[in-house]
Amino acid sequence: MPIVDSKTGEIKKDYSLEELVEKAKEMRAYSMVAITVAGSGHTGGSLSITDIAAALYLKHINHDPANPEWNERDRVFWSIGHKAPVIYAALGLAGYFPIAEMVKLRKLWSGFEGHPNRFTVPGIELSSGSLGQGLGVAVGCALNGRLEKKNYKVFCILGDGELNEGSVWEAIMSAAHYRLDNLIAIVDRNRLQIDGPTEEVMKLENLSDKWQSFGWQVLEVDGHSMAEILSTLKKASEIKGKPIVIIAHTIKGKGVSFAENVVGYHGICPKDGLTGAESLKGALQDIDAPGFDQKKVDQLLKIACDYQEKVNRQVEESLPKFSKNYWWNSEDIMRVEMIPTRNGFGDAIAELGESSEVVTFGADITSSIKMDQFYANNPERKERFFQMGIAEQNMTVAAAGFAKEGKTAFIGSYGVFVTGRNWDQIRTTLCYNNFNVKIVNAHGGLSVGPDGATHQALEEISNMYYLPNMRIIVPADSIETKKGTFYIANIPGPVTIRYAREATPVVTTKHTPFQFGIANIIRFRAEKEDFVEAFETQLSTEYQNEEEDIALIACGPMVAEAMRAAYILKKELNLECRVINIHTVKPIDKEAIIRATQEIGVLLSVEEHQKGGFGNIVAGVIATEKKAYSVPFLFDMMGVNDEFGLSGAPWELLKVFGLTAEHIAKRAIELYHSKK
Amino acid sequence: MPIVDSKTGEIKKDYSLEELVEKAKEMRAYSMVAITVAGSGHTGGSLSITDIAAALYLKHINHDPANPEWNERDRVFWSIGHKAPVIYAALGLAGYFPIAEMVKLRKLWSGFEGHPNRFTVPGIELSSGSLGQGLGVAVGCALNGRLEKKNYKVFCILGDGELNEGSVWEAIMSAAHYRLDNLIAIVDRNRLQIDGPTEEVMKLENLSDKWQSFGWQVLEVDGHSMAEILSTLKKASEIKGKPIVIIAHTIKGKGVSFAENVVGYHGICPKDGLTGAESLKGALQDIDAPGFDQKKVDQLLKIACDYQEKVNRQVEESLPKFSKNYWWNSEDIMRVEMIPTRNGFGDAIAELGESSEVVTFGADITSSIKMDQFYANNPERKERFFQMGIAEQNMTVAAAGFAKEGKTAFIGSYGVFVTGRNWDQIRTTLCYNNFNVKIVNAHGGLSVGPDGATHQALEEISNMYYLPNMRIIVPADSIETKKGTFYIANIPGPVTIRYAREATPVVTTKHTPFQFGIANIIRFRAEKEDFVEAFETQLSTEYQNEEEDIALIACGPMVAEAMRAAYILKKELNLECRVINIHTVKPIDKEAIIRATQEIGVLLSVEEHQKGGFGNIVAGVIATEKKAYSVPFLFDMMGVNDEFGLSGAPWELLKVFGLTAEHIAKRAIELYHSKK
Repeated sequence: MPIVDSKTGEIKKDYSLEELVEKAKEMRAYSMVAITVAGSGHTGGSLSITDIAAALYLKHINHDPANPEWNERDRVFWSIGHKAPVIYAALGLAGYFPIAEMVKLRKLWSGFEGHPNRFTVPGIELSSGSLGQGLGVAVGCALNGRLEKKNYKVFCILGDGELNEGSVWEAIMSAAHYRLDNLIAIVDRNRLQIDGPTEEVMKLENLSDKWQSFGWQVLEVDGHSMAEILSTLKKASEIKGKPIVIIAHTIKGKGVSFAENVVGYHGICPKDGLTGAESLKGALQDIDAPGFDQKKVDQLLKIACDYQEKVNRQVEESLPKFSKNYWWNSEDIMRVEMIPTRNGFGDAIAELGESSEVVTFGADITSSIKMDQFYANNPERKERFFQMGIAEQNMTVAAAGFAKEGKTAFIGSYGVFVTGRNWDQIRTTLCYNNFNVKIVNAHGGLSVGPDGATHQALEEISNMYYLPNMRIIVPADSIETKKGTFYIANIPGPVTIRYAREATPVVTTKHTPFQFGIANIIRFRAEKEDFVEAFETQLSTEYQNEEEDIALIACGPMVAEAMRAAYILKKELNLECRVINIHTVKPIDKEAIIRATQEIGVLLSVEEHQKGGFGNIVAGVIATEKKAYSVPFLFDMMGVNDEFGLSGAPWELLKVFGLTAEHIAKRAIELYHSKK
Repeated sequence: MPIVDSKTGEIKKDYSLEELVEKAKEMRAYSMVAITVAGSGHTGGSLSITDIAAALYLKHINHDPANPEWNERDRVFWSIGHKAPVIYAALGLAGYFPIAEMVKLRKLWSGFEGHPNRFTVPGIELSSGSLGQGLGVAVGCALNGRLEKKNYKVFCILGDGELNEGSVWEAIMSAAHYRLDNLIAIVDRNRLQIDGPTEEVMKLENLSDKWQSFGWQVLEVDGHSMAEILSTLKKASEIKGKPIVIIAHTIKGKGVSFAENVVGYHGICPKDGLTGAESLKGALQDIDAPGFDQKKVDQLLKIACDYQEKVNRQVEESLPKFSKNYWWNSEDIMRVEMIPTRNGFGDAIAELGESSEVVTFGADITSSIKMDQFYANNPERKERFFQMGIAEQNMTVAAAGFAKEGKTAFIGSYGVFVTGRNWDQIRTTLCYNNFNVKIVNAHGGLSVGPDGATHQALEEISNMYYLPNMRIIVPADSIETKKGTFYIANIPGPVTIRYAREATPVVTTKHTPFQFGIANIIRFRAEKEDFVEAFETQLSTEYQNEEEDIALIACGPMVAEAMRAAYILKKELNLECRVINIHTVKPIDKEAIIRATQEIGVLLSVEEHQKGGFGNIVAGVIATEKKAYSVPFLFDMMGVNDEFGLSGAPWELLKVFGLTAEHIAKRAIELYHSKK
């Protein structure tokens, strides 16, 4: 069925085959413009599934864009949320919203999140982004359709790399168990995932045999032949007694010559981002969508530009103001280097790789988290690197198999996935066995940015903290990440090291002390050209009380913000701050916290995490260890307030979630004044 | 290779086929005695895999029991840790320890845990118990063997029900990817899992096709023909270029007539437990193991009995003493009913099932957590119950598929698995989408008892607390569990309800107030015959300050212990306690905690959980909400001290982990006195 009027049942809009081909071109063009403007986004996979998306939303499924919640509609679940650009393009062209809106892709508050959110864009059935979950939801939806004797069909679009996830095979097994012939899965078989060709990362072939052995009817299709797609969808809708999978043979990056079959175009925009007008021009020439002339592109760019300007104003207005601008590198005296903390891990793992006892693992995001530095300059070490595909559970236990034999094993991925997908594996196989596996919890915090909520890990500290035998390091910058990585390589048992993705201020030097389990005390001393030189750092065990006014207790990139807050508080109100860098969250330096409670009595914790995951641990130390009945103090916590993140630029997010030095300084002043 | 001397390479012990058959009988006999004495344990699956275990440990694998860490040994991983009895029997007969020791199975401190612990029994390669993890460890171990050019073979024993877990398919895929021909998986294909026949719970056939399509060489064997087993193992060891799986067709409960092919004999001991001498007698007659006469059995029972008596003494010695015995039901005035909290859930779900909007899900542990009460007396509701097998990830997202369509969906399992196996599914699909799925977190806490550490959930409160949109209820007893279940059925969005397995004191009545988000204040008033009548309970919002001496802040079954502690403190030291029952952990009743801080100032939190998971939340409220600089108070927390649980009787565990009223009273007195 094409697009219908849910009230009357009449066809609202139908397309010929030729028109669908043109519409698919339009969808590709909109995707490319949106991704270019966003400066990030998933090009390759959006382009490979475009023709199928066009066929579904503009021709095959039964739906009414004017009534997204129409109960009789066919349901389409995108298990691969990262293909958001093409989802928005399809929904926009189908009429769910004015399609030009989608050029606000990945922009703050636009609703066009990096991974789709069902509450912000009409027509989205499921907020997704973490792989391997959509097919199971589709199974539930199809079972419900049968229970309720509904005629709707349930579609689920999967990536091929996604099939590495065991959770998908659970769903596959259950759909066959229940003989769900109202369920049609479509695999975007573009044969490339982030780390390389699927058959090199984690062999899937013979893929058709696999699905068949699990009890599914398999259809195969050229995913770029509109005629074949339509006839295959029709055929799929007529099969009875078992679930149907359509393996769609596609080309990643299809339609844009420089992106076709190129591994690098998984998750990045055309060359040079927003300034890449020529790159976009080339892409649009290749696509040759009707009506996509320069004028139209300029109009779209203007929509995005105007929107971003509005956002910029609102973001800036939300920032507490002081007598002058203390932002990073805004003046000579705030000069810092900006280096992603992950680089520190990359540097360390490159050196650690010298030892034949060190083995490393990949989960299809190897270079992004800098795990590739293990072998980048030492190709002979590739025999000690094991690619496990997008299968965090298996990566975790396979690493344990090495640790058991005496190796020091490093696993890593996005923080959400490498601590959350595999939590029970970490508990039972790593911690209960006390295996020497190091969890590289990369991309922690909001600063992951435009990928949005699903990819912004905000719960790992608490998820790891309460596990026996686990230790946790949350370094402040790239240099501390390097030191921390060296350290944990040499202590036995499981350790989590959490670091960020975005470039963050380098606020330590190689001479700054670093001792596992001992906090650093950081004091602002005097203005210097280099921000970092304005401070003095000592181990908490060596620090002499200076009876400061306020203690700022932070971990990770929030240490830099706390330092900047200390700077602001000194310059603006002559308040002295003791910044406590809790780089080791477990075991936590209780004595440093207790001394701050007794010696200062005004304490503020700051975390780039759900508020309390770290702060409540600090509160627990204060409340239980203060030892005397009457120890006056005030304590408050800053963090993310029990809400999910958003797409946006990293620094935008820190500003609107209230986690900049300006916010810290403001809250510290309030706290200090409420002491009286 | 049979058992060898790792130093000389000489064969230490070899067995003929006939001898192996007799040895397998002995293993069955030891397993049955141990399970009978323990009063719990996994009969069916231990008996089905016995012949294979005998063939491996006594004939096929290359190992030296005198040198368990010998680097050249073949490795055997038991992914199905619940078959511990037969593992111990095999290791004992092979000579790793005196086999009679294994009759201490599941007894406190014996090391013979309900699920094996590699630190306490020599020959155990991996502490396991949570399904679906062993094969991945074996993959890692096999990869390491190849990297190190070792000749060892790696075996992994899997259950068939276990193949429901997607994590197994990740491991299967990776082993084929790496063509691990030094890896041999053995599937105990006994065709029964806890909830019924495998093909009814979650269809596995054609199982051979599935493994083949994933790139494995499949061999099949009669798992009870010793000759076939030995020849198949030999054949498996000669295959090159791909991993090998042996699908062993077995009979669950094999060798014991009343257990063979009976679903009920998955996880329970022969009828009537320790007193079931006749039941054991029948089993031993069926097995007919050489030398297993009554005298031998009596000797074994004596070993177990003597051990338990020693344990009993040590446990009792560890309990703080008061002027008399205040234990539950030890005197008329301590009279309480003991009912498992899970029964309250069962009662509620039976009533809630009347609504056609309620759907429920099973993860192969349906009756144990009382989810079966949904349909037990209403078979027509079975169409709204969906069995998902041992696949917590898929159960979670499939439930979301129903919730999306307007249903109220209840999923449940052991707390570890239903919050830990699927944490990212809960985060992304349930919480980010705000779907109306209720997580029935059964078997929370140490009181799970003899199953041991892997099955004792001690981290769910913190794992769930920091998830946006999640709410958490931890009811005190079966009546409150029933009220809580009714309540959460009527609030939209995800909720976790955590309850215990063991019979726990009923300390509320149907008239006791229960309001979501509002704590109950419980005060001891006067001795009564019924313990519960000695107390008065009010909503915290209605309670008038009585300037008590101590506040005890508890959730779950610890509320009953806190009440008993209040009783003890009043009778022994005339101290008044305000017991605060935080049945709603999120959103937590901040005002009740703050009032206790201001009005009492001596506070102690108690949780059957890793200490701080709950207590640090309380500490966070105290520290951040007390509002004034000088509010004198003392706070301490009680819980499990950052360590894993143990096998033992539920009450034994609460005693030795320091979580009884006696411990609470003792700590409260210390805290109260340190105020001065």
